[in-house]
Amino acid sequence: MALNEFSLIKQYFADATQKRQDVIVDIGDDCAVLCCPEDSDIAISIDTLVSGIHFFADVDPFTLGHKSLAVGLSDLAAMGATPAWFTLALTLPELDENWLSAFAEGMTALASQHNIQLVGGDTTKGPLTISIQVHGLVKKGTQLRRSQAKLSDKIYVSGTLGDAGAALQKRLSSWQPSELTEQDWLFLNKRLEQPSPRLAISQKILPFTHAAIDISDGLLADLGHILETSGKGARINLDAIPLSSSLQKIDRQQALKFALSSGDDYELCFTVAADQVAAVEALNLDIQQIGEIIDEQTIVLLDEDGKPSILDITSKGYDHFA
Amino acid sequence: MALNEFSLIKQYFADATQKRQDVIVDIGDDCAVLCCPEDSDIAISIDTLVSGIHFFADVDPFTLGHKSLAVGLSDLAAMGATPAWFTLALTLPELDENWLSAFAEGMTALASQHNIQLVGGDTTKGPLTISIQVHGLVKKGTQLRRSQAKLSDKIYVSGTLGDAGAALQKRLSSWQPSELTEQDWLFLNKRLEQPSPRLAISQKILPFTHAAIDISDGLLADLGHILETSGKGARINLDAIPLSSSLQKIDRQQALKFALSSGDDYELCFTVAADQVAAVEALNLDIQQIGEIIDEQTIVLLDEDGKPSILDITSKGYDHFA
Repeated sequence: MALNEFSLIKQYFADATQKRQDVIVDIGDDCAVLCCPEDSDIAISIDTLVSGIHFFADVDPFTLGHKSLAVGLSDLAAMGATPAWFTLALTLPELDENWLSAFAEGMTALASQHNIQLVGGDTTKGPLTISIQVHGLVKKGTQLRRSQAKLSDKIYVSGTLGDAGAALQKRLSSWQPSELTEQDWLFLNKRLEQPSPRLAISQKILPFTHAAIDISDGLLADLGHILETSGKGARINLDAIPLSSSLQKIDRQQALKFALSSGDDYELCFTVAADQVAAVEALNLDIQQIGEIIDEQTIVLLDEDGKPSILDITSKGYDHFA
Repeated sequence: MALNEFSLIKQYFADATQKRQDVIVDIGDDCAVLCCPEDSDIAISIDTLVSGIHFFADVDPFTLGHKSLAVGLSDLAAMGATPAWFTLALTLPELDENWLSAFAEGMTALASQHNIQLVGGDTTKGPLTISIQVHGLVKKGTQLRRSQAKLSDKIYVSGTLGDAGAALQKRLSSWQPSELTEQDWLFLNKRLEQPSPRLAISQKILPFTHAAIDISDGLLADLGHILETSGKGARINLDAIPLSSSLQKIDRQQALKFALSSGDDYELCFTVAADQVAAVEALNLDIQQIGEIIDEQTIVLLDEDGKPSILDITSKGYDHFA
């Protein structure tokens, strides 16, 4: 198979994404050339998904195309950046036009939704591997860092947590609680396979937020990155952890375990100064206050009876919860 | 193997590359944040190298690290851009510290030479695959396009052509002409495994050049891209094709075949208006005028006896030469 990288990328992907004014040279030359507005910096993130590691080899290619781009868009959201351009390095074992067409459709649909243009790529033959680099614009000085959490900040998360983890658990084991209906599984699988990057929320909370991260490895692990880089700790009210109506049906300890420790949520976790809470709440976003930043470098989990579990984040003690 | 992407990338790569003033947020957050000067645009290119396809699985990891980055730097040179930042998506079958250390050494040595900083990356487990995206700065309006060749432009190439092709041919077959010494093979292999991106030449010819491309797929194929996008043809003097002293030792037809049709040279091919030739020659660069742009969309190859071979580039007739 001699894939012509430009024609393949153009045929399936490029012509189906937005055409932006700030793309000076598009696909088809040695480089793409991009214009950054004077008042902005460029935020970039690259992620690789490998078949059999990050996704099941038989996954629906439409949802895989969606998720491959969503992962990067979620990083842009966590940084407070607005999507602009992306590149796609696609390694394929064979040229399966049906697969490729569905994969491209899932990817370009999400790209159009967020006005991000495919500006470059490479296609090679080999084991199925997808690397995507996203580029966003962020007004100078406004980027959301992990390291800027302050004492007494309130901790928020978007959406609901643990849904993707529950869907994955079902795929990987015989776990299938009788409380969950087919409708629940459709919802949970969609949360796993087609996450929604929280770009709209990110732009709205930007002026009020100290620190932010996207939850890709589980709340405790990702909040842990905020705490480590900020030199702080957190007190979390387990009762406040947002659970979907599907996860509310199952055993509470199990649901909380998914919400705290499983990955692939692609929700935002961010901190807000106490005196900005009213402004943030007034935005009426799909977000939930779940705790606050403390000085001691631990994560204190408060259960409904007020009994605390204390995790030592300096020793990467997340596994203790498992 | 649970690779921690940040610690691995930081340990082996990031701390060994330049620290640039224009990197606002370095490795370790959701995105890197980069500052583009007001007078410049950003040129980007992504390339993937797959084990067994683009390189031999047993290749020296130092040279593989060098080449993985050199391929992208060569694209920046072809665009007239100055290197600034790169990202590395590395998929590894296992964590082999000796391999990784040598790979990183080869890559960071070249990065330091060209003042390009590693600002992001992803490490995953899977079949050995290396995706690198390079980012360069190009003064607004000065980017070198493939499509800007004009009638009567003189065609130049840098360095010598076909060396990498000869080295590859030896690896892939029993071909081993008796004229070539061990020293020749050392030279030819180095040309294959450690190409030198022509960034210095690119910056010097920038003001005088209409169209440019880097030669990665063979002179005829890559010059063909210039001709197709410019709607032009070319007359090439085969006598003028620059051959290394090693390739000058072998059968001339064989040497020319490598020079015209084999890949991996990573030299520049560019066109210069006739009235700029004196200025370009005065630069005293390692470049050679090999022909000129004509209106008819063919490639005419003139041999030493003046007998032309005509290639129909509109029908992608490069294979006829093989």
